Amino acid sequence: MKRIDVNCDLGESYGVYKIGNDREILKFVSSANIACGFHAGDPTVMRETVKLALHHDVAIGAHPGLQDLRGFGRRNIQISPSEAYDLVVYQIGALYGFVKAEGGTMQHVKPHGALYNMAAKDAALSKAIAEAVYAVNPELILFGLSGSELIKAGKEIGLQTANEVFADRTYQEDGSLTLRTMKGALIEEDEVAINQVIGMIERKEVQSQQGTTVPIQADTVCIHGDGTHALQFAHALNTAFKQADITRVAVSCR
Amino acid sequence: MKRIDVNCDLGESYGVYKIGNDREILKFVSSANIACGFHAGDPTVMRETVKLALHHDVAIGAHPGLQDLRGFGRRNIQISPSEAYDLVVYQIGALYGFVKAEGGTMQHVKPHGALYNMAAKDAALSKAIAEAVYAVNPELILFGLSGSELIKAGKEIGLQTANEVFADRTYQEDGSLTLRTMKGALIEEDEVAINQVIGMIERKEVQSQQGTTVPIQADTVCIHGDGTHALQFAHALNTAFKQADITRVAVSCR
Amino acid sequence: MKRIDVNCDLGESYGVYKIGNDREILKFVSSANIACGFHAGDPTVMRETVKLALHHDVAIGAHPGLQDLRGFGRRNIQISPSEAYDLVVYQIGALYGFVKAEGGTMQHVKPHGALYNMAAKDAALSKAIAEAVYAVNPELILFGLSGSELIKAGKEIGLQTANEVFADRTYQEDGSLTLRTMKGALIEEDEVAINQVIGMIERKEVQSQQGTTVPIQADTVCIHGDGTHALQFAHALNTAFKQADITRVAVSCR
Amino acid sequence: MKRIDVNCDLGESYGVYKIGNDREILKFVSSANIACGFHAGDPTVMRETVKLALHHDVAIGAHPGLQDLRGFGRRNIQISPSEAYDLVVYQIGALYGFVKAEGGTMQHVKPHGALYNMAAKDAALSKAIAEAVYAVNPELILFGLSGSELIKAGKEIGLQTANEVFADRTYQEDGSLTLRTMKGALIEEDEVAINQVIGMIERKEVQSQQGTTVPIQADTVCIHGDGTHALQFAHALNTAFKQADITRVAVSCR
Repeated sequence: MKRIDVNCDLGESYGVYKIGNDREILKFVSSANIACGFHAGDPTVMRETVKLALHHDVAIGAHPGLQDLRGFGRRNIQISPSEAYDLVVYQIGALYGFVKAEGGTMQHVKPHGALYNMAAKDAALSKAIAEAVYAVNPELILFGLSGSELIKAGKEIGLQTANEVFADRTYQEDGSLTLRTMKGALIEEDEVAINQVIGMIERKEVQSQQGTTVPIQADTVCIHGDGTHALQFAHALNTAFKQADITRVAVSCR
Repeated sequence: MKRIDVNCDLGESYGVYKIGNDREILKFVSSANIACGFHAGDPTVMRETVKLALHHDVAIGAHPGLQDLRGFGRRNIQISPSEAYDLVVYQIGALYGFVKAEGGTMQHVKPHGALYNMAAKDAALSKAIAEAVYAVNPELILFGLSGSELIKAGKEIGLQTANEVFADRTYQEDGSLTLRTMKGALIEEDEVAINQVIGMIERKEVQSQQGTTVPIQADTVCIHGDGTHALQFAHALNTAFKQADITRVAVSCR
Repeated sequence: MKRIDVNCDLGESYGVYKIGNDREILKFVSSANIACGFHAGDPTVMRETVKLALHHDVAIGAHPGLQDLRGFGRRNIQISPSEAYDLVVYQIGALYGFVKAEGGTMQHVKPHGALYNMAAKDAALSKAIAEAVYAVNPELILFGLSGSELIKAGKEIGLQTANEVFADRTYQEDGSLTLRTMKGALIEEDEVAINQVIGMIERKEVQSQQGTTVPIQADTVCIHGDGTHALQFAHALNTAFKQADITRVAVSCR
Repeated sequence: MKRIDVNCDLGESYGVYKIGNDREILKFVSSANIACGFHAGDPTVMRETVKLALHHDVAIGAHPGLQDLRGFGRRNIQISPSEAYDLVVYQIGALYGFVKAEGGTMQHVKPHGALYNMAAKDAALSKAIAEAVYAVNPELILFGLSGSELIKAGKEIGLQTANEVFADRTYQEDGSLTLRTMKGALIEEDEVAINQVIGMIERKEVQSQQGTTVPIQADTVCIHGDGTHALQFAHALNTAFKQADITRVAVSCR
């Protein structure tokens, strides 16, 4: 039986500022990446999101980001590996507080935005992030771009890892994501996106933008929680999974 | 044998901004209250301070404050009990990350500055803080102003508490501290301050500014880490403790 | 001919976080209070909002708030008059940069949220705010709660002032607003709100919650920009103004 | 008669955190670059520093930086030219508020840290910064690394510019500064540093690390305000200027 984890970034509201359809999207995911207050989220949002995830029986992960609320953690900041270690430990800990207070457990850690992207290609940064996760709790699963430096660093230190793939992004022949700034980076038709994901799960391969077939490992697929279409897509993807006999289940439950 | 805990606020530097003599003052204390990034401290400072405290065998506590780096957490912010709960859980968790990563344990929680002062007189705020501490870890010891609402709330919920007294502050006949804005709030002569502390430990009483004798419980005494004089006073206080057969020991080691 | 200014808080988005219907509400107001980055707004939002206001020929004002993005400037923070002076000068200046860059002029200053409410009753705070406005530009008009300490302080120093009234809030017999925490603080029926405003403009009086008639000066009326209903109400209020021969015009254009 | 401006970064304290010897170093400089609250400084510090500079008859400049108090504006953040424009307009405006309130005038703008360094090599970023300065006030003088893209962009738009040189840094044969991460980047002997500066002023050239003679324009020389040695060096440099008949004078006073 084929299995896949579906993850989504959650808890990204801040103070009076609301973002996302957390209550709705939780019905379609098995793992929640919860913002920890650096690029998004605040303590109150974190508590509420942890509660919501537990209520929906969705596995909880920390989603640490760069200290950049203004840029939503999407702007590269030139940090040292040591600074990355510190901000990951801090943010995992902060979320742990709420998980513990609500009687839950933490499943995973997935770096956010620019931190995720920088780590994908930077071995030293990835090593620091993996060390941070391991130091706080070696049972945590490290989520990273499929085949990236972050996945390598996680394995190296002895963490369980989850290779993440994207439904709505095209791939290059070296297995990397097409940069958002390049043409055709985003897949806009749901059917194409869904077929790509199912191909990655069933055949462990993806068609690159160059037309070649590229091997890829898909442990978890990332979906978005923003906008009405996100919910429609989440619904369609889950329906397609059922038809293809693919079970949606959190990485830790496999 | 008489015992007292000596605590000090530590890890209050931020980025390039350095404050305090953490390395020196650690020699004279048994409990360290480590800032958690809201009113002072940053993830790097937190890691370094946790390491330092462990190296000196000083018990570690979280020192959560209001989200006000600009005001160093000393300005009252009108927060709800629920907001207080959330920011305390968050900050304990954040520090826990570093304590766990460094292989240590957390002994206590002591609210900082305006949060400490507001809680001392506000039962609802104190209840929320005590609940936050208890929810994250019921083994944590709650530090609060001796005889304050915070101590009551901690006991009520089932936490171990530590009544805190101050060496360099005068007291009112109701057992409260003389407000900093009032005349004679600070004790400037070391000898007077030291005698006051020893009296509180030995006889469980303090002379109020009004001249009356007020009963007081002294489980832990707060000293400051800033400035050259702070170190001199810490040294003098410790010497006086030895002469009076008072053993300095962390609250959790009694 | 009767005249009234209609003002609205604008430019309250921050980074990826969007709030308000600035483009729509601008059609119904004569004065825009633009957030300056402390409680809401960021430099990019400020530039865009200044441009929008100029495009709609709406008078521009600075809307300085407490440094509290988390609480949207609505939580009281215990600041000294001197701190208030500094944060008002800073924020007026910051907005001035964009107004100057876009070739406009600044008409007024209206403190936001908790700063507005604290100033309404605190003469020393109001004096500091009025001094800040005057020091940066004595031509600026100071907006404050009708009859408040802020209006008094503005007049005292020699600033032009604008007494602000609220359409959707009830009043007490001393002319103050009914606290939001009290029953009946908000007027929920549009017709009642509109009649209240028109009465304040035409007869310079308002019916208090206690049933008495209270004299009130209405130079500018505050409307809200959030939600679909806000636009409907703005439209209805403007229609009522036309029917009552009340001209909507910025305070500086009278 | 030879003339040189001496500039220094000032007003870098924040809340309770104190940095620099502003009162002392002001005696040795003709232009003050005042932090504007993004990488350092707060409204209170800004007001005090503007006052101090006016008191010492030192020309005032805005010192806008990246929004990164944690990294003191020294970490590259990947911002768009448009974001750079916005943050420069904002910060110039904010400082303008205090300069206006204190009855002074603003002479110049010098980007700080990572913003300065990124702009030196990035034409698009430099163009945006120059446009921001010009839009707020075309009379402002733009300070930039001697011969850099920022100087070119300033000239292009019609701003007066000031080529900045460094006393304590070595140069490469292309006229750029030796990176701080490379060996020999810093000149540690005062005499060598002073001779380098005087050579740049008198002969408009500098000896590169490679041993070649490189042409360089020196309109203003940057000195540091931190530490005891900074004051000694400032004193020695000023003495050397007098002996070499070089007059220290603000750029705007030439």
